Amino acid sequence: MPHARILIRPKAGILDPQGTAVEQALPQLGFQPAENVRIGRLVELDVADAGELDAICQKLLANPLIEDYEIQVDA
Amino acid sequence: MPHARILIRPKAGILDPQGTAVEQALPQLGFQPAENVRIGRLVELDVADAGELDAICQKLLANPLIEDYEIQVDA
Repeated sequence: MPHARILIRPKAGILDPQGTAVEQALPQLGFQPAENVRIGRLVELDVADAGELDAICQKLLANPLIEDYEIQVDA
Repeated sequence: MPHARILIRPKAGILDPQGTAVEQALPQLGFQPAENVRIGRLVELDVADAGELDAICQKLLANPLIEDYEIQVDA
């Protein structure tokens, strides 16, 4: 079965409160500041039919209204 | 600032109920079955000092007891 990795991110312009929390926490923990922190989801799976992945993202894994996704299929 | 991507996954052997839910949902939605579905987190950020990323993962972003993480820094 082909192995696939799906990266799901909040769309540009969509608020990302988890990312904001990380940005604020870093200096408090003594780290250098970071910018543009975005928290998304990572889905890894073995699929019988990699051609279905786009539909799987649209219908199940991502919320296309507020999230972008990127599909990577191992050769 | 260097751009970094961090992939956080449940360790092998750690239960992943979200992954199990996706596995069970796929055939019910009419898709081919999938195996080894694992759901993790994706963190993308611009950091002042990429050398701090390992410590940031250990202390803030991941739970090293139950999660593995992979750091990718753009050249």
